[in-house]
Amino acid sequence: MKNNPILEKYNRRVEASNSLLCVGLDSEFNKLPVSFQTQQFPQFAFNQYIIDQTAEYASSFKPNMAFYEARGTEGLAELKMTIDYLRDQHPEIVTICDAKRADIGNTNQGYVTSIFDWMGFDAVTLHPYLGREALAPFIDRTDKASIILCRTSNPGAGEFQDLDCNGAPLWQAVAKTVSQGWNTNGNCMLVVGATYPSEMQKIRQLAPDITFLVPGIGAQGGDVEAVVDAGLDSQGRGLMISASRSIIFSADPATAARDLRDEINVARKAVHAAH
Amino acid sequence: MKNNPILEKYNRRVEASNSLLCVGLDSEFNKLPVSFQTQQFPQFAFNQYIIDQTAEYASSFKPNMAFYEARGTEGLAELKMTIDYLRDQHPEIVTICDAKRADIGNTNQGYVTSIFDWMGFDAVTLHPYLGREALAPFIDRTDKASIILCRTSNPGAGEFQDLDCNGAPLWQAVAKTVSQGWNTNGNCMLVVGATYPSEMQKIRQLAPDITFLVPGIGAQGGDVEAVVDAGLDSQGRGLMISASRSIIFSADPATAARDLRDEINVARKAVHAAH
Repeated sequence: MKNNPILEKYNRRVEASNSLLCVGLDSEFNKLPVSFQTQQFPQFAFNQYIIDQTAEYASSFKPNMAFYEARGTEGLAELKMTIDYLRDQHPEIVTICDAKRADIGNTNQGYVTSIFDWMGFDAVTLHPYLGREALAPFIDRTDKASIILCRTSNPGAGEFQDLDCNGAPLWQAVAKTVSQGWNTNGNCMLVVGATYPSEMQKIRQLAPDITFLVPGIGAQGGDVEAVVDAGLDSQGRGLMISASRSIIFSADPATAARDLRDEINVARKAVHAAH
Repeated sequence: MKNNPILEKYNRRVEASNSLLCVGLDSEFNKLPVSFQTQQFPQFAFNQYIIDQTAEYASSFKPNMAFYEARGTEGLAELKMTIDYLRDQHPEIVTICDAKRADIGNTNQGYVTSIFDWMGFDAVTLHPYLGREALAPFIDRTDKASIILCRTSNPGAGEFQDLDCNGAPLWQAVAKTVSQGWNTNGNCMLVVGATYPSEMQKIRQLAPDITFLVPGIGAQGGDVEAVVDAGLDSQGRGLMISASRSIIFSADPATAARDLRDEINVARKAVHAAH
């Protein structure tokens, strides 16, 4: 497996910040404080504030596209402003576009252009349903990272993901296929929800070298200790633990981010001590 | 199963235009004639031209978001201009946003707002991987239609879709689940690629009342006769057969659209005669 510049950047940042925390910039307009809603660029102004407050404790930032597209061209423009600001102020922090895209073959090139080149994200989340052949325009970008949905954090995730496929659930087939088949460039990651720690443990066995993006901590109810215990790789990292609403809509985002980073690190130490 | 206003609109339009043809507005900037590339709103100007040329023969229009997002806020603005133009000029023609979205629960509300309300599309394409619970914000919009990816048209579609799930491939599980479980409001459709006619025949058995969006005719090599034979429902419709590049980048889009509509109708008559 080759080294990928984004995963290397991520691992360097994890060391430097002593943090596995990914701050989710799910800056839904209706939930912004009125003092931001009334500004010229409300989502960008809010993101600037959150970034300034939390960057010290963050190994990555992850805006979800849906909250920006909801505001049409204005939202998209402010998302780009956010990423420009992040790259300018904190070039060492990894940026994830949580867009959950996947079209067929060449059509994906449009999303690649938009997400990787126009906005300049380091990585993007992708649906697996269309297969590796369809996702080539993303995965072939060895300067970027592709994060494949494996086990999602939502309550109804199992409707298809739990279907028994030749003796193992579909999410295991995705974990195995990505880990053993798609990751020849070392630029694939997996989405594994914090709300399913026993599934995460199995996915860690199937994909020992893959970094997991882990949503579902905080407002969704995932447990930090269980995630760290189930998901850390053999090097004591391999996780990007995302929290959004519980940090960005907190009265004190800096403290909320620092506290969660520290809680994750306490769990890391406990796992280290136990093994 | 209830009646859905978009499916009713579609069936009315099929009758009025005697057409199952969906014109794909995959108006990739780099492929536009220079005379359009140099205009102030190149993608919108091109789409206007294509709509004016082909509307008479079209039951629906389907822009793929990727080709617009590739141009950032400008592309998104021109896509909205396109849909405004279509609604103004041809309110009787169904508009499909080929966006292949799907996030968890409430996050999808952002896409719903963007695609259904801000741009005003009638329907959107969606990934099934996260389950019905996640897609509720789309499917609960009974004034719109949700089109779920079932069997995609790309050569590598089978990597996951062909996995044996309890004795039948995953695409059959999706077809069955959507048809028998998700479609209580009568507003679900399925994406079934023209390049897999035998799979389409099986999906028609599993989902007798569902309308299929069928990409893969034209540039991708799908065969019109095979599709019509495999996919027509008991009323002689239930298909939305999409072609894009072979029409919009033709030297004479009107003739290309009319010819394909007619070819589809010849096949419909042959099927009718045979049964």
